Formats: sequence, structure tokens, C-alpha cells
Amino acid sequence: MTSIEQIRPPEQRLKRFIESDAFKQAVTALILINAVVLGALTFAEPGTDARRWLMLIDNTIVAIFVIEIALKLVVWRTEFFRKGWNIFDFVVIGISLISVAETFSILRALRVFRILRLLHVVPMMRRITEALFRALPGMGAIIAVLMLLIYVGSVIATDLFGATSDPEVEMLFGDLHSSALSLFQVMTMDGWRNEVLQKVMDDGNPYAWVFFMAFIFIASFAVLNLFIALFVDALQAEHELAQDERIEELDDKADDAALARNEMMAVLKSLQTDIQDLRETLSKREQDDRLDQ
Amino acid sequence: MTSIEQIRPPEQRLKRFIESDAFKQAVTALILINAVVLGALTFAEPGTDARRWLMLIDNTIVAIFVIEIALKLVVWRTEFFRKGWNIFDFVVIGISLISVAETFSILRALRVFRILRLLHVVPMMRRITEALFRALPGMGAIIAVLMLLIYVGSVIATDLFGATSDPEVEMLFGDLHSSALSLFQVMTMDGWRNEVLQKVMDDGNPYAWVFFMAFIFIASFAVLNLFIALFVDALQAEHELAQDERIEELDDKADDAALARNEMMAVLKSLQTDIQDLRETLSKREQDDRLDQ
Amino acid sequence: MTSIEQIRPPEQRLKRFIESDAFKQAVTALILINAVVLGALTFAEPGTDARRWLMLIDNTIVAIFVIEIALKLVVWRTEFFRKGWNIFDFVVIGISLISVAETFSILRALRVFRILRLLHVVPMMRRITEALFRALPGMGAIIAVLMLLIYVGSVIATDLFGATSDPEVEMLFGDLHSSALSLFQVMTMDGWRNEVLQKVMDDGNPYAWVFFMAFIFIASFAVLNLFIALFVDALQAEHELAQDERIEELDDKADDAALARNEMMAVLKSLQTDIQDLRETLSKREQDDRLDQ
Amino acid sequence: MTSIEQIRPPEQRLKRFIESDAFKQAVTALILINAVVLGALTFAEPGTDARRWLMLIDNTIVAIFVIEIALKLVVWRTEFFRKGWNIFDFVVIGISLISVAETFSILRALRVFRILRLLHVVPMMRRITEALFRALPGMGAIIAVLMLLIYVGSVIATDLFGATSDPEVEMLFGDLHSSALSLFQVMTMDGWRNEVLQKVMDDGNPYAWVFFMAFIFIASFAVLNLFIALFVDALQAEHELAQDERIEELDDKADDAALARNEMMAVLKSLQTDIQDLRETLSKREQDDRLDQ
Repeated sequence: MTSIEQIRPPEQRLKRFIESDAFKQAVTALILINAVVLGALTFAEPGTDARRWLMLIDNTIVAIFVIEIALKLVVWRTEFFRKGWNIFDFVVIGISLISVAETFSILRALRVFRILRLLHVVPMMRRITEALFRALPGMGAIIAVLMLLIYVGSVIATDLFGATSDPEVEMLFGDLHSSALSLFQVMTMDGWRNEVLQKVMDDGNPYAWVFFMAFIFIASFAVLNLFIALFVDALQAEHELAQDERIEELDDKADDAALARNEMMAVLKSLQTDIQDLRETLSKREQDDRLDQ
Repeated sequence: MTSIEQIRPPEQRLKRFIESDAFKQAVTALILINAVVLGALTFAEPGTDARRWLMLIDNTIVAIFVIEIALKLVVWRTEFFRKGWNIFDFVVIGISLISVAETFSILRALRVFRILRLLHVVPMMRRITEALFRALPGMGAIIAVLMLLIYVGSVIATDLFGATSDPEVEMLFGDLHSSALSLFQVMTMDGWRNEVLQKVMDDGNPYAWVFFMAFIFIASFAVLNLFIALFVDALQAEHELAQDERIEELDDKADDAALARNEMMAVLKSLQTDIQDLRETLSKREQDDRLDQ
Repeated sequence: MTSIEQIRPPEQRLKRFIESDAFKQAVTALILINAVVLGALTFAEPGTDARRWLMLIDNTIVAIFVIEIALKLVVWRTEFFRKGWNIFDFVVIGISLISVAETFSILRALRVFRILRLLHVVPMMRRITEALFRALPGMGAIIAVLMLLIYVGSVIATDLFGATSDPEVEMLFGDLHSSALSLFQVMTMDGWRNEVLQKVMDDGNPYAWVFFMAFIFIASFAVLNLFIALFVDALQAEHELAQDERIEELDDKADDAALARNEMMAVLKSLQTDIQDLRETLSKREQDDRLDQ
Repeated sequence: MTSIEQIRPPEQRLKRFIESDAFKQAVTALILINAVVLGALTFAEPGTDARRWLMLIDNTIVAIFVIEIALKLVVWRTEFFRKGWNIFDFVVIGISLISVAETFSILRALRVFRILRLLHVVPMMRRITEALFRALPGMGAIIAVLMLLIYVGSVIATDLFGATSDPEVEMLFGDLHSSALSLFQVMTMDGWRNEVLQKVMDDGNPYAWVFFMAFIFIASFAVLNLFIALFVDALQAEHELAQDERIEELDDKADDAALARNEMMAVLKSLQTDIQDLRETLSKREQDDRLDQ
């Protein structure tokens, strides 16, 4: 912010242009068009004219995005990288540039992340996304506990059920990462009985239900508490804004009342001294009068 | 409301009739009978007498509903279309009229929407339905984020897993809308492992679990926040009615107290001047007395 | 309660006996033993000695329960039927008496309901059960809306998908009650895609996903609001007990303050008149003095 | 705590060493290394060098943990067993010692529980884990109600559906514990229709859906209330810390205000007597003056 004043005039005009609503709306429109183009590309067979045209539009939009970021870099220089969203844009466009060269790869799939720029370009979505990010650290500890549970459960499950000749159980609990995936499946309660438990029980582990029931109970309980933590945090935040404001107001009024009381007390004290003076004056006069008489 | 007084006497009598409890109860009863008739029609084989009788009752009820709406149009004229529920009735009955002509079509199925008139004709249900509608705008932004997630996920999934010779994976991720449906299925956690992930992994994508785990985590997290937003809104609304009323009361009392203190202060100040006057009077008298002596 | 004093001495002694902790604990113990016996009976093969012994214990316990209820009827007479739980006991034991005669039937299965007496005999469980019952009326309207949704959905689904030659789809949506069950399945999101949607789509309804997606969205939204309603109610109840008490206290203190201020104001006013009197006295004296001089 | 002062100097030095941050971090690091080793062991084939090395590291770490607990026992003696977490460590290391002897057993699997020591060694996780434990008693009654529901449901289901010749239904409801597992599956809504209900209905129980629908409704309702109870408790706890503090503050201010008012009242009363004295003095003087004249 402080460095903004030091920018030379032409850059300032550029900055005003970049920050204008028209520029932002144009970028939003380009992302939306890009989203449609990338969707359409999944239907276009390789080698057709349609595909070539769509690729041309896509590459043009990438070029415009590169210019957009270049302009921003000219204006804000190193300041540019202080904002998380700018780094996000930089990485996402960078991936797109690399993937333009290749024809088919995972990188090409990642080009689609460009559309996610909408998440911070549209103000309404930005509010939601930033709220989601803010909620993340509060979940850290519970997610760590959950991952520890899955890890310990996976080691135990691989030990107990992994050494088997049944190919289905082998696939479920044959090694550590298969076990972790299977336990995550059990945690989501998707086909936990017939697709997991039953196969393990049929493979000579009649008491496997003890392990799975315990795992479901503990995991559900931990997940539930993760929910509750998030909910209480959300409510807390909301509450502090809404009601505490009113209690704050009440509190201010209580403070005002205390001040007013102090002031009244001061007036009362001065009244008391006034009256004391009066009495002394009168009693002195009386004495004078007595002396007079 | 203001235009009601301008209605001529006969229409006013009609209006009173339409707004009477008896009329409303009769309409409610007709919708309920219609619900039973439409249910019974699903059992009646085409060409039987039972079907013909049921169709006759159904058409008669539609006719009565047409008259009902016609009467309302006579009374309220263009005002009629200002209420959302009236438009709902108009469209629903309109669909029924069109579908009477045809014998078998999607429109015939939509005739059943007539039963949904219960949602606003029964006061208890109306309260619920209107509460649900009020909750919708608050969800807009998160639903937009979720739809963006599914869209981006679908483009990636179609790119990565769609170009395959396996018919099962082809059906799951062959084109953009299949991918969207499959990702929605994964989001509901219904058979996500065996029916989706396993088939993709068996099709030569051993690291597909990274994509699906990430998608489940992000989508669950977004859905959870949608829940929390709704919760907090509901609680907020409830709270403002319940407790804030009491704090409002406390606030009013604090304001009353401030007023009372101001009044007391005024009295104290006047007391102070009174006593000041007294002292001056006395001291002046004393001086006079001294002068006298 | 008022009629209790009118009970004659022997009945009063009986009443004291029935209401004693020892009696209640004995009944609780009997229900627990009965629970174990009824569980053991599911393992006992017909015709074995074990089964005969278990049946004997079971019938003995039923006989004791009959005596228990008879004693309560002697003490409370018609008052007995004023409590819901007493009626529950009466019906449950009545079913047991009828089922003793028969050897195998649904009624025999219902005998197990006797164990549910624990729900009100154990104080801790009773609190939970009564809380659940209290929560029911608040849910009435939303459950009515959900049932209307399933009914309308079932009529539409039977119309659209029911007239088919595919036996699997026939089983899912062939008649109204099958459709209702299938839509309830979709609502619980259990196998909604592969077991329901896919079969309907493969049966020549390529756009069936529109219907099912809409149904899932609307139903989930209604269920979610049912949850929220229950939650807000629970919080409300809790809140009124906990925090409002403290605000009530604050409110009382504000009222006390108002009273104190009124009292102070009265004192101040009397002070004012006192000082007014003083001034008048003094000014009168001054006038007198002047007149004197 | 009181016994700590009675510890002799060498033990005090030992105590300071055990309670040092360096010692705690070393233990945390060892548990993490142990976690990796135990994970790696699931990949190591029996008889390989890798396995022998990993076993060596594992046994060394167990030996260090034994020394750690021995040191703690020397310092705290019987005090050691007053903390739940110490007992947890003692049992977990004890299991490891027994299992070192054996080569393959359930006990070997339980050795992995050592990793769970992280749950209380890492402060962040400890907070979460202790919060989870605190939430348990509040759930006791509802879990008891749920278990009663499953027990009663299992007895009924075994009675009604268990006596069958269909091996699939036999496996689901053939005996009491199978029924309990199947009903738990229905409660988690995993494959409840096709894998449970449909098989029972096809086995000659066309009205089985009544039983399962009722069970799903009642169980969901109870589970939901368990959630709500936890939620409300969490919110309650949070609330008492956050907002009540502020109301407490307001309350304190109200008390201060009452004190201030009492003080002001005292001053006012003394003012009143002062002025009363003044009036009496003046009126007495007047009388004296009159008498003088």
C-alpha cells in the first residue's frame, strides 16, 4: 500500500485500468467462455476442425491471461506475490503454458484449474471460498487424529487380514495403502458390510466385525466432533458480530451510567459542602448575633 | 389491498365466498380426493371401467379447479398474478388442461403436480414450504461453488479417464454429463469405491484414488459448510426473535435509566443553584447586617 | 393426585409398596432377565429341554408382570390409564398373554416389546425417550411435506417408468408402493445410481437423471430442514433455561435500579421543597427584617 | 503434587529431566519413527534382511519406552497410576513386551496401539482426544437406548425372518448376532434395500418393509437426537466461556451501580438531615428573634 504512491504516472494509469470494474468483468467473462470451451473440447474428437478452432480460442484466452498477469507484475512487481490469489493465478496459468506444448497428459487435465479462477474473481464466490479457507486451521487437529486412526487401523488390518490367499481380501487389505483406502471406504459407510466386512469374515476371520464396528464407532465419533467444531466456530463468529454488538452497547451504556453516577456524586458532594458552608455561616452568624446581643 | 375497496358489490360477495373457510376446506378436500384418484389411476389398467370412472372424477376435479381460478381472476384480475402461489396454481392447472387431451406423455405425469397445491393450501405445510424457499437464496453462492467443483472435476475426469476401451469406465466418464453424474454419485458417497474408483483403477489409472479422495474431501467440506450456513441462518433468525427481544428490553431499561439520571441531574443542578442562591442571600444579608451594625 | 388421599389404608400400603425403590428395581431386574431369556430363546431349537425351561421362565415373568399391572389397577383404578406409559405396559403385556397360546406367529415376535418397558422403567432412559417424544410434534409438518413429496414422486415415477417389460424396473417402479419404496431408497442415497437410476436409464429413459437429481435435491433439502428445525428447538429449550436466567437476573437488577432511582428522586424532590422552604423562610425573614428596620 | 516436595534430590533431578521439553520431543520423535517402522514392517516379507533390521529398530524403541516408564515409576511411584494416560502407556507397552516373544498373533497387531501414544504426547491432539472423552458420558443414555432398539429389533427379526431355507437370509438373520449386525447395517443405510430388505421380501415376507421402514425411522431419529445432544453440549460449553463472561461483566457493573446508588442515597439522606438541621436552626433563630423583638 505504501509503495503505491511511489509508482510513476504511466503505471498508475495502468493500475487504474487493471482495477477498473470493466477490466474485472472482462476477465470474468473470459474465464466463463474458457470454461465452456474446455467443456466443449471433451466432446471434440482429435483431428476435427471443431477441435482445432476450440484449441485456438483456448490458446488465445491463455495468451490474454498471460498478458493480464504480466501487466499486474509490471504494476505491483514483487508486491504481486504477497496475495495468495495472485500466486494461485500465476501457478495455474504457468501450468497452462507448459501444457500447451504437449498433446495428452495429466498436465493437460490440470489446465482446467484455470476455471477455478472464478472462485476469487466473482466476489460472491470469493467470500465463500475465503470462509472455507478460514475454517481449515480449526480442523487441523481433528484431521490429524482421524489420519492417525486410519494409519493405526491400516497397520492392524494389514497384519490381521492381509496375509491371505483370497484375491478379494488381498485387494482390500493386502498392503498398507489398500488397507487405508478400504478403511476410508468403511468410514464413509459405503458398502462396508458386503464389500468389506463380509469378505474378511468369509476369509477365516469370524471376529472381524469387532474390529470394523469399533472402527466405525470411533471414526464416526471423531468425524461428528469435527462437524461440531466447525459449527461451533461458525456460530461463534456469527454471534460475536450479531449479539455481542448489542451486549457491547449495553456495556457502553453501563459505563455511561457509571460516569453519570460519578458526576452526580461529585455534584452531591459539592452540595454537601455548600450546605455545610451554609450551616457554618449560619451558626457563625448566630454566635455573632448572640455575641451582639 | 388498496384496490380491494374499489371492487363492486357482487365481486365483493364473490371475494368473501372465495376467502371463506368453507371454500378453502372444500378446495383442500378436492385436492386430497384428487391425490387418491391419481394414485388409484396408476393401478387401473387402460381400457377398464375403473379407469374410465377415475378419469371422469379426475377431469371433473380439474374442471372445478379451472372454475376456482377463473373466479379468483374475476375478483383480483391482474392482482391475482402478484402472488407466487397463484402463478403456481395457474401453471399447474394449465398443464393439466393440456394433458387432458393426450393419452400418454410426460405432461400426463406432470398433472400430478396438482397435488402439490396442498403445500400452500394447508396452512401448516405452507409455513414449512415458505421457510424452505426463504432458505434458498442463502445457499446460492455455495451451490454455485459446488457446481463449479463438479464442472471442473468432470472436465478433468473426462480428460483423464474418458478415452478408454472399457465399456464400464466409458459409461462412467465417457462424456462430460456422464462424468458430472458419476462425480455427483461420488459426492453422495454411494458406491464410490467399488462402482467408480475400482473400475477406473482397474482400467490402468492406479493413482485415480488421489483424484477421488481429493474430490470427496473438497466436496464434503463444501457441502458441510452449506449445512452450517443454513444452520447458522436458522439459528440467527430464531435468536433475533427470542433473546434479542430481552436484550432490547434491557436496552430500553438502560435508556430509561439514562433519562432518569438526566432528570435527577437537572434536579441536583437546580438544587445546587438554589443553595448557591441561599448562600448568596445569606452572605448578602450578613454584609447588610455588618453594614447595619 | 387429589384422589390419592381418598384411598383406603390397605391400598395405601400397597401403593407405598409399588412405589418403593425395591419394587421398581425388582421390576427392572425382571425385564433385564426377560431380555436375556428372549434372546436365548432365538438360539433354542424347538423341542429341546433348554427351550422348555426358557419358555417356563418367560411365562413366569409374564405372570409376574400381569400381577404387577393388576396391583397397579387395584391401587389407581381408572387413574391408571391416564399415564401413557401405563397404557403402553398394559398393551405390551396384553400382547404377551395372547401370544402365550400360539406357537409361531407375528404376535410371538411382538412379545419382545416387553423389553421396551426398560425405556420408562430406567430413569435415565426415560428422560431420553420422553425428550424424543416431545420432539415429535415439531417434526409433524416437515414429515407431512416429505410424505407428500414421496407420494407425488411415486405417482410420477410409476406413470413414467412403470409401464415396462424390464422385470428389474418393473420391480422398482411397477406399482405405487414399489415406487414409494424405491424413492425412499433414493432419499437415503443407498445405491441410488446403479440400483435405481442406471436401470431406469437403460430401460429407454435417458433423461431419468433429471427426475432423480431433482428428487434427491428437494428431498435432501427438506430432510436437512427437518434436522435444523429439531436442532434449533433443542437449542432454544436449552437456552431458555441457561442464559435467559442470567438475563432475567440482569433484568431484575435493572428493575431494582429503577426502584432505587425513584426513591432517590423522591428524596431529591423533598430536598428541593425543603430548600425552597428555607429560601422562602429566609426571604420572608429578610422582608420582615427590612420592615423592622 | 504434595508428595513432590518429599522426593529426594537425585529423583528431583530425574523428574526435571523427564518433564523437560527435550525429553518430551525425543519421545514424540521416537513414536513417529516407530509408526513409520511398523508401517514398513507390513511390506517386509518374513525372513528378509529388511524385516530383521526393522524388527531390531522396533524392539529397540520398545526397550527405550520400557526404560521411560521405569524412570517415571521411579519418580512418581504409585502416583504414576493416578493419571489415565499413564495407565494407557503402561498397558500399551506391556502388550508390546508380551508380543515381542510371539511371531504372529492378534497381540502382534495390538502392538500398533503404541502409535496411539501420540494422542496424548502431542498437546494439540491431546486437547482433541480429551474433548472426545469428555463428550462420551453425555452420550451414554442415548447409546443405551440405541443398543436396546437393536437388541429388541434383532430378537424380532430373528423370530420373523430367521427360520428360513434361503442361505442368504439365513446369513443375515439366522441368529441373534447376525441380526444385530444386519440391523446395524440397515441403521448405517448401507445397501439396506437390495442387500437386506429385498432378500427378506423375496423369501416370503412381503410385508418386511414395514419392519425395516419403522426401524430406519426410529433409529435415524434416535441417532439424530444423539447428534443434537452432542451439539447442544458443545455449544453450551463454548457459550458459557464466551458470552456469559460478558453478561457476568454486565452483572458486575449492575452490582457496582447498586453500590454506587446506595452510597448516593446515603449522601442524599445526610443532605436531607443537614438541610433539616438548617431549617430547624433557622426556625429556632426566627423564634428567638421573635422572642427578642
